[in-house]
Parts: sequence; structure tokens; C-alpha cells
Amino acid sequence: MPAESPVVADLSEQDLLDRIFPHLPVGSRTLVPPGDDAAVVVAPDGRYVVTCDVLVEDVHFRRRWSTGEDVGRRAAAQNLADVAAMGARPVALVVGLVVPGGTPVAWVEGLARGLGDACRPLDVGVVGGDLSGGPTIVVSVTAHGDLEGRAPVLRSGARAGDVVAYAGRRGWSAAGLALLSAGLPETDPGLTAFYRAPTPPLDAGPAAARAGATAMLDVSDGLLRDASRIARASGVTLHLEDPAVAFVQDASRLAGAAAALGADLTQWLLTGGEDHGLLATFPPGAPLPEPFGAIGVVSSRGSDLVLVGGEPPRAVTTGWDHFGD
Amino acid sequence: MPAESPVVADLSEQDLLDRIFPHLPVGSRTLVPPGDDAAVVVAPDGRYVVTCDVLVEDVHFRRRWSTGEDVGRRAAAQNLADVAAMGARPVALVVGLVVPGGTPVAWVEGLARGLGDACRPLDVGVVGGDLSGGPTIVVSVTAHGDLEGRAPVLRSGARAGDVVAYAGRRGWSAAGLALLSAGLPETDPGLTAFYRAPTPPLDAGPAAARAGATAMLDVSDGLLRDASRIARASGVTLHLEDPAVAFVQDASRLAGAAAALGADLTQWLLTGGEDHGLLATFPPGAPLPEPFGAIGVVSSRGSDLVLVGGEPPRAVTTGWDHFGD
Repeated sequence: MPAESPVVADLSEQDLLDRIFPHLPVGSRTLVPPGDDAAVVVAPDGRYVVTCDVLVEDVHFRRRWSTGEDVGRRAAAQNLADVAAMGARPVALVVGLVVPGGTPVAWVEGLARGLGDACRPLDVGVVGGDLSGGPTIVVSVTAHGDLEGRAPVLRSGARAGDVVAYAGRRGWSAAGLALLSAGLPETDPGLTAFYRAPTPPLDAGPAAARAGATAMLDVSDGLLRDASRIARASGVTLHLEDPAVAFVQDASRLAGAAAALGADLTQWLLTGGEDHGLLATFPPGAPLPEPFGAIGVVSSRGSDLVLVGGEPPRAVTTGWDHFGD
Repeated sequence: MPAESPVVADLSEQDLLDRIFPHLPVGSRTLVPPGDDAAVVVAPDGRYVVTCDVLVEDVHFRRRWSTGEDVGRRAAAQNLADVAAMGARPVALVVGLVVPGGTPVAWVEGLARGLGDACRPLDVGVVGGDLSGGPTIVVSVTAHGDLEGRAPVLRSGARAGDVVAYAGRRGWSAAGLALLSAGLPETDPGLTAFYRAPTPPLDAGPAAARAGATAMLDVSDGLLRDASRIARASGVTLHLEDPAVAFVQDASRLAGAAAALGADLTQWLLTGGEDHGLLATFPPGAPLPEPFGAIGVVSSRGSDLVLVGGEPPRAVTTGWDHFGD
């Protein structure tokens, strides 16, 4: 067994688990921690929120662009954002992990550290998982949350007259990925870091629920595509402001990357995915909780699901699809 | 798009989901079904059990040996067995699925049908999931259960004097796999069918908890290895009877396959994995719930974790390890 840079195949499964577990928080709401057939987690209000997202190497991340820590933080963040988008407080993760035998043990330890770093400050426990060999790295995370007695905030509750609001970054992941793809990550390291490991505004989800949000979702596939999901589910039309106005700070931040790449930053704002911001609708006059900002209004259903600056968007169908379209 | 035998890459993600969802039960305890950022499931006693198991093509199954239905049934069964092994009633699954673009759509539909077939009779909902492309098929299942007000049955509760009992098949999966590997599946099609899609005694888990079981686990890695886990966690020694006596019916069933292969059926009984029977300990004198049968007794910790017929077993370290040993 090489002493210096061991790979997964150099260790027994138990030895690998022994390297992973110290990085993972148990969480204060975990009654039975990992180590038995299953964990037991509290659900004080008699319900739990549950969601699952899978990350696959060379589909969702590349090892030459992202460290293990990055992938762990991202896997946690995007699942926790789905929990937050229901208005729930994240409580627990379980992680199914597939790693080729040639994967450096240090990469897997980094992944665990990244998961732990994303979870520990929120008191989210990593309460279980499974580990397997396989031909490529797959990180399958299931996240759980607590509605704290509130109704879940669904996609279907937006009503005419509601305010459309957004919390989080817009377009940063798309711009970061574009910089990495072009070999220009140093143009704006903050954007590439955000692509590798986004930091969604997780507290904004429960805050929106407390403020009376009528609909909410996690924007993983781009603003237009996800806005159209609220519109379709709610039977309304979402009128979004000109993105250069609605997202003026993001537009300013993205300008350098757009110039370096000759790219259209408006497309990043409208269709860029994987920022995991929260798109929500609020009753008219409701004070928007920080860091939500108003970006439009809801009307009864018109001929389009989404309008941008009063016009049908040019790129409404653009978004992430794994197999085709 | 070919009309006859489409593969996954011929469909959009939504079209593929539209083929999958009709096969999946929602479950009567699902408050918010799939379609939003997350599902909401009831947890009447204020806790939930959660566990995760991953199946990887060519590690855990081969497509030339197992249909999509087989893999779906097996993925559900082995996770539901982990839930049952806590003494809990299975309630909900979420499924992270990775499929190469060249996978026949019919295979994926079969997988969904198999998941649904395993879940529907138990009123287990498939409440969420994620779908991705990737180089190989990965099925990552997270299962949830309801303790119905009881304490979870852990591995650590076995006490000297307890009876050791087992519910379910022993060695069938190992024998079925050996027959398939040797190209002799017709020697006993029931064994190969059990390997492809085991049918654990899921009701026996909650029944054991009600009967006062002191420790329990799902036997996925072989009887000796899993018995040693109870022994280690509980600080005791498990004395197992001669397996030819303790598992006389299984031994009889396995005899034909063993003769055809020149194999030692005792090894299948002791170290064969993936039967997903339940190994439990009960206080002396407690009536064993069906279909548990007594297979040994617990003593205070001796020099071995497990004894078989009074002797240290020859193959106690044998069992499943994905990376080494």
C-alpha cells in the first residue's frame, strides 16, 4: 500500500469510512446516528420535507475544475436549497457515494469535508449513506427539512397581484462555468468559486414562508425556466422587469466576465442555472424579507407564462436538460 | 426519433419522467407528492427512520442477468429491509437515478415498474427523485420509515441469555448468483430469481419490535459478518447452531445447486450476502413472531464474536467489501 497518495482501492471499505466520518456532523436533531441499519431523526411537527439531487462527474462537475471540497459543498448546497425553497429549515442529509478505485483518498476526504463545512453551521446532520465502487464518481444526496409548523410553500400558490422576488446571486454560476470553459478563470475568481460551490441564501426560505410567500422554488435551471414553472403550476403569468435593472448588482459584477468572453450577460441573468437562488411570490404590500428584492409582478394568465420587460423572452425554452431537447 | 426501441437519449428529460411516473405509487402518507422542490411526508410520532443504499451496474447487478424490473424490485427491497430492521414500517422512498443515453427506455420503465411493484402493496410512496445522464446505471435509493411510537431496535441491545433468531431466506442470493455466474441458471430458477429480486420478510421487522427484540439488523453482507456486528455493538458473543440444522429448509433447497456447481452450501448459508433476511435477538422465553426461527443464543463476550456449532467459524471475515480486503 503506497504511503503517500493512496487511492480508494488501497483501503478497505471500513478504512475509507473511518477517513470520511470525522468530517461529518451528526446534527443535534439526530436520535440514532449513522452506524446502524438506518438513522432516526426528529420531526417535531409530525412531517418532514425530503428531496434528492444527484451529481455525476463530467456531467455536473469536472475534477480538473473542482476539488472534492467544492463538490461536497455544492452537493449539500443544492439539496439544502430545495429544502429551503419549501420554506423549511434543513435538518439532515444522507449521501450515496460511488467512487472508482483509482480516486485519491484525499479527494474523498475533501468531499466529506465540503459536505461537513456546508452542513455544520446549519446544524444539519449527515445521518447516513452508502459507499460503492463504480466507473465514475456519483454523489447522490437526499436532504430533509423541518417545516416548523408552517404550511409548505409550493410552486402553485402565486396569485394575480403578487410581487415576484428573488434572493441570491443571478448568473454567477453560468459566468463562472463559461470562464472555466474558456480557460480564463482568473478573470473573476469569485465567479468561478461560486460555480464550483454556490452559497444559496438558505435562511431566506423559512423567512419567506414566515413573511407569507405564496409560491417559491429554487432556481436551478435558469430564471426563465423556473419562473415558467411557477407560472404553469399557479395558472398565472409572471412579468419580470428588465434583468439589467432587476439584477443591477449582478449585472455589474458579470460585466467583466462578459467583456472578456464576448458573452451576453443578459443571457446569464435570464437562463444561467445552478445559482440556487430562491424565486418567490409575495402578497402585494407584504414586506420582503432580506435578501429578497422585487423583480416583477404576477398577473392572471396571458398568452405567455413569462414576460420580460413586457415582451416574450427570446430564450424561454433554454435551460438544463440531461438527455435532449 | 426511432419509433420502436427508443433509448434514453431519444427523449427529453420530461418525456422520460412522463414514462416513469405512472408506475410509481404516491403513498397515502405523502402530503406533497413529487413535482415541487421537495415532497412532504407525514411522521406521526415525531421521528422518522432514514437509510440509503446504492446499486451500480456491473458492481451490484448485470443487465444481462437482471431486467429493469428486477433491479427496481431489488433496490426497493434492500432499502425497505434496512427500515424494517430498525423495527419500523416503511413509508417512502426517493430515488436518484443515473442512466447512460444509450439505455433502452423500456429498461428504465421496467425499473420504475419494479420499484412500484415492490412499494405499492406496502403503501410505500416513491415521493421524489432525480434523474441524470452518466456513463453507467446507478440507482441510489433513500428509504424512510415510521417507528409507530416504538423505540428503534438497534444492533447494540443483545444481552447474554437472549435467543438469536432469523427471518427470511439464507444463502439463496449467493447460490442464485453462483448459478448465473456458471451459466447454469436453469438448475434452480427460484434461486436465480431470488438473487435478482430478493423478497425480504419486511413485516417481520415491526413484528420483532412489538415482540421485544433487543437487537436486529438486515443481513446484507452474510450471516457471520452481520452477526459479528451485533456481537461487537452489544459486547456479547453470538453462538449459532450448525447451519445445516438451523437452516435445514434452506440447506435442502440449496443442495441441488451445490451439487451442480460442486459448491459448499454451508458457505452460502454462513457467508452468502444480499438475502436481506432479519437477524434479531429476543429475551429468553419471548415468543418469536412468524417467520422468525431460533438459530442460537447470546452469551457474555468470549474470545470470539461469533461461534458456529461451538467453534470459531472458518470464514468469519468473508463478506462483501467494495474496495478491498
